[in-house]
Amino acid sequence: MNNRYIDYNQLLMANHYQAPLSLMRLAINQAAATAGVRSLEGYDEILSDLAEPILESAARFAGEVLSPLNSVGDRNPSRCEPRGVVTPPGFVEAYRRFREDGWASLAAPAEYGGQGLPTLVSAAVTEMWGGANLSFAMCPELTVGALEAMRVHASAQLNDEYAPRLASGDWATAMCLTEPQSGSDLSTLRTRAEPDGDAWRLFGRKIYISWGDHDLTDNIVHFVLARTPDAPPGLRGISLFLVPKKVPSATGTLEKNDIDAVSLEHKMGIRASPTCVMVLGEHGGARGWLIGRLNDGLGCMFTMMNHMRLGVGLHSLGLAERSLQLARVHARERLQGRDAAGAQRRIIEHADVRRMLLMMKSLTQAARGLAYTAAATLDVAHSAEGDDGQRTAAARRVDLLTPVVKAWCSDVGVEVASLGVQVHGGMGYVDDAEISQVYRDARIGPIFEGTNYIQAQDLLGRKVIRDKGAALGELLADIEKAAEELPAVVAHPLAHLRSGLVDGCWRLRKATASLIEQSAREPDLIGAAACHFLNWLAVLAGGWQLALSARQAALEFDATAARAVVDLAAFYATHVLPRVYTHEAAVTQGTQCVTALTADL
Amino acid sequence: MNNRYIDYNQLLMANHYQAPLSLMRLAINQAAATAGVRSLEGYDEILSDLAEPILESAARFAGEVLSPLNSVGDRNPSRCEPRGVVTPPGFVEAYRRFREDGWASLAAPAEYGGQGLPTLVSAAVTEMWGGANLSFAMCPELTVGALEAMRVHASAQLNDEYAPRLASGDWATAMCLTEPQSGSDLSTLRTRAEPDGDAWRLFGRKIYISWGDHDLTDNIVHFVLARTPDAPPGLRGISLFLVPKKVPSATGTLEKNDIDAVSLEHKMGIRASPTCVMVLGEHGGARGWLIGRLNDGLGCMFTMMNHMRLGVGLHSLGLAERSLQLARVHARERLQGRDAAGAQRRIIEHADVRRMLLMMKSLTQAARGLAYTAAATLDVAHSAEGDDGQRTAAARRVDLLTPVVKAWCSDVGVEVASLGVQVHGGMGYVDDAEISQVYRDARIGPIFEGTNYIQAQDLLGRKVIRDKGAALGELLADIEKAAEELPAVVAHPLAHLRSGLVDGCWRLRKATASLIEQSAREPDLIGAAACHFLNWLAVLAGGWQLALSARQAALEFDATAARAVVDLAAFYATHVLPRVYTHEAAVTQGTQCVTALTADL
Repeated sequence: MNNRYIDYNQLLMANHYQAPLSLMRLAINQAAATAGVRSLEGYDEILSDLAEPILESAARFAGEVLSPLNSVGDRNPSRCEPRGVVTPPGFVEAYRRFREDGWASLAAPAEYGGQGLPTLVSAAVTEMWGGANLSFAMCPELTVGALEAMRVHASAQLNDEYAPRLASGDWATAMCLTEPQSGSDLSTLRTRAEPDGDAWRLFGRKIYISWGDHDLTDNIVHFVLARTPDAPPGLRGISLFLVPKKVPSATGTLEKNDIDAVSLEHKMGIRASPTCVMVLGEHGGARGWLIGRLNDGLGCMFTMMNHMRLGVGLHSLGLAERSLQLARVHARERLQGRDAAGAQRRIIEHADVRRMLLMMKSLTQAARGLAYTAAATLDVAHSAEGDDGQRTAAARRVDLLTPVVKAWCSDVGVEVASLGVQVHGGMGYVDDAEISQVYRDARIGPIFEGTNYIQAQDLLGRKVIRDKGAALGELLADIEKAAEELPAVVAHPLAHLRSGLVDGCWRLRKATASLIEQSAREPDLIGAAACHFLNWLAVLAGGWQLALSARQAALEFDATAARAVVDLAAFYATHVLPRVYTHEAAVTQGTQCVTALTADL
Repeated sequence: MNNRYIDYNQLLMANHYQAPLSLMRLAINQAAATAGVRSLEGYDEILSDLAEPILESAARFAGEVLSPLNSVGDRNPSRCEPRGVVTPPGFVEAYRRFREDGWASLAAPAEYGGQGLPTLVSAAVTEMWGGANLSFAMCPELTVGALEAMRVHASAQLNDEYAPRLASGDWATAMCLTEPQSGSDLSTLRTRAEPDGDAWRLFGRKIYISWGDHDLTDNIVHFVLARTPDAPPGLRGISLFLVPKKVPSATGTLEKNDIDAVSLEHKMGIRASPTCVMVLGEHGGARGWLIGRLNDGLGCMFTMMNHMRLGVGLHSLGLAERSLQLARVHARERLQGRDAAGAQRRIIEHADVRRMLLMMKSLTQAARGLAYTAAATLDVAHSAEGDDGQRTAAARRVDLLTPVVKAWCSDVGVEVASLGVQVHGGMGYVDDAEISQVYRDARIGPIFEGTNYIQAQDLLGRKVIRDKGAALGELLADIEKAAEELPAVVAHPLAHLRSGLVDGCWRLRKATASLIEQSAREPDLIGAAACHFLNWLAVLAGGWQLALSARQAALEFDATAARAVVDLAAFYATHVLPRVYTHEAAVTQGTQCVTALTADL
């Protein structure tokens, strides 16, 4: 009689994703305060009255509908059949409920019939979807960014025809960027668009297209990067096209377009999410419509992509939270070792297991604070009111934070999932254990929607060096201010956090000034320093967020719960914040041995 | 036409494991010098004359026979059928050649008919097997430790009957420790052994038994931990039994014993390696013979286990090397971005890719030096000559290094494999890419043969605090000496390495003294500090090894190759060595918030 299987399966059945509502609320409130969103019209009411029931309903949907399908999807990946891509059992029904319950339209603009909820609230909901079922979550997330790109760049006619169907979730979207020869470097795109009356015909092959085909919706609207005849070479000759799977006619019928998924990738993780090879124009050309201006495709795509980057950060954060939950349940149930009185101990009582759980929880809450802060700041940047200076400052801050959120949260997702496996021991290495799926799923985060190096290069090159460190300086000033304003009651337990943040900011300012000065002379410097620079800033920003959490918890939580948050911040100060010294050494002393290397690797 | 698949498959076909012979030789020579093995009788001749052809033949076997089967095994995991476990296609034939070519007997003692090669040489060969095909490599590695346990603890009769068949590789071995309720904590073992004439009958269920059944050999000799009637409770009541799959009769026939694999785990990685649930005694009891003294089973098992821990370190190191090779080939082929003249660049020319490859290579060579040093020191400890003091000192050093090698090399294996995935981008996330298998395979290293926390606890509790830091002090003195004796020619490029090592050793000494003093009063301190303590020492020891590599390379390599090694050491000094500050903060300032934590996790 092998008890392990029985116990473990029972455990799993009772152990679906549970949204950490009180820590989410804490992060929402601290992000709202940091970004100053409550002064925007209607925002305070939304946070006070609407947010709570929305978060509670989303938590139920995530835990009861999406989470139980997560391992189903891993064991029964999407399949490419002659009639199209077939998703795992239960996904079609789950999506139907998702749409009917209004989740698809949550963040969609009101002008398209969406609910137009603030990004700050939808960010918490997005985290839940990612934590419960990343493969599923990726599909609706694509639409949120697509609608933003439509709103900003597409013609009124295209918007009329497509946006409401996207906003309702009736139709889905996909981003078609990558080609076999063209990944991080989009300048080598070959897919071509030829004029055809007032529209275009597209021909080419795209790979790694997430949710490029599926059976969740009647139609899928593809956003395709392609070159037109006589377009300039490189990045300046790329345009963005809307290419529907089925073209709606004037009478409302849908006519099959010349774009098909011809195969799926078999992947390490996110196996329910169909990663398609798409072929356009095998039968005369896929009908497409230009979005935005000719040859301005990258600009249009980045409106969409920036949203997706925040989405990757939030989903990764959800996976970190899920890893913590799985590890915590395991650590509470599993008996190993004995206490002084000879009784068996739950492994959560062992100091090293506590250390791992604290690491997981402190990284997760730090990442949550940072991602929500980016979301709240985006709401300010997009708001119709407020003075221009406030909106511009918010937009600058979002530009700075977006690559940090994408890269750091996805790295945190991988690190926390790996700790989750370790807490499980051998039980975490078998396919039965959901943590092993989470570990495999999390590994895509640092790769897709721009690798984490692409994020780091964007941060250091475009967001820091280009404005000579101005936006960064504003952020560091905020971090220093939070460190210096820690309430007296936590001044002692958080002494290391305070000194670490103040010292770390000072050092980062100094290093940044030096990088700005050197980068003009050393073309490879940004490449050699970027990843460590991003992580240096991220580790400081994470500490900032936990300082704010400790402060906010003193206002909102009872003494025990507030103390737990202070403990997380104190743990972070001694176990994570010192990583700044590694990043500093790599940035200030280590670029020479990367750029000057002449020897064979 | 999708070129990606064609190119990539062609690439894979030409891209089997290649043993890094010149860096292996370098590490062998520096380990031999550190441990002082050349003064042992016959050793110098072996290193000078025998080692080279052995390493070259092993490299061919690893690259031509084992490596091509690696992904085959991942795609066709071992299966449990009524007739027993069936290994993936090609494994039986590969093992036949492995045995016939003499690889099974390489490290087996001459008294059993083995070749009795020094551990230092077999360590490099073990690394190759792990790098080429970890699942396969695990099987013969078990026998090396088992023979050592037999030699030290088993009766002459058992040795006569079993050891020569194990030494030749005719029969295989398996270690049966874990039970559903009993993993890291073996005190709760329930498998029981009842006396039966001059032998025993065993009854129980064991899980996670690597290579517990298979079709590579006619017989499998299990080493089983069990309790006898009236044994004292806990760890002091456990004995070790030899339980063959088939019992040899006086006439040489083999009679089926009452031990069977009833199912296999489906795992994230090492899928070709059958991880068995074993049932003993369903039909009257499995016949077994006691090894060593009654109730001294843990001591006997640890003779075997200590060898396996070195083996895990070497295999993990092999995976790190393999990740580097896969990433390097990809980085040399893949074009993304353009140079100043507008030509497409191979991604190996991008600074951040170079940074990742340098990280992979410097960690791998540092880990190699450390693992080989442990192997060479083991040869001194086991040698028949030399004074007792030398042997005792060597044994003390091996005891200290073994947990560091197991834990750090396996963590390095995971870190380097993850970097390897990152260098591949999206192509590293699909099942076609061997790097995605290596990433999954590597994750078992920190878990099995004692989790890395068990290693850290062993290091800090038993190997450091118990002797009041004496053995550690000797090691730190060697590290400081190597730092201070860096040749003048590399003094400038390695200035950071020198100062980092000297400073890091000083700080670790101070922290150790404080831990020794505090640990008597604070029972949870070891648990809270152990993992960071181990990694602190490991990072310093890795730097030590690269300092020695730089010195050795100046003697052996031409100027270009020697410079490449110095570059690795310089990279390590600025990108890895500063991690000591994180470990120091956790050990010296961070244990309070782990042990004193009262709040709910």
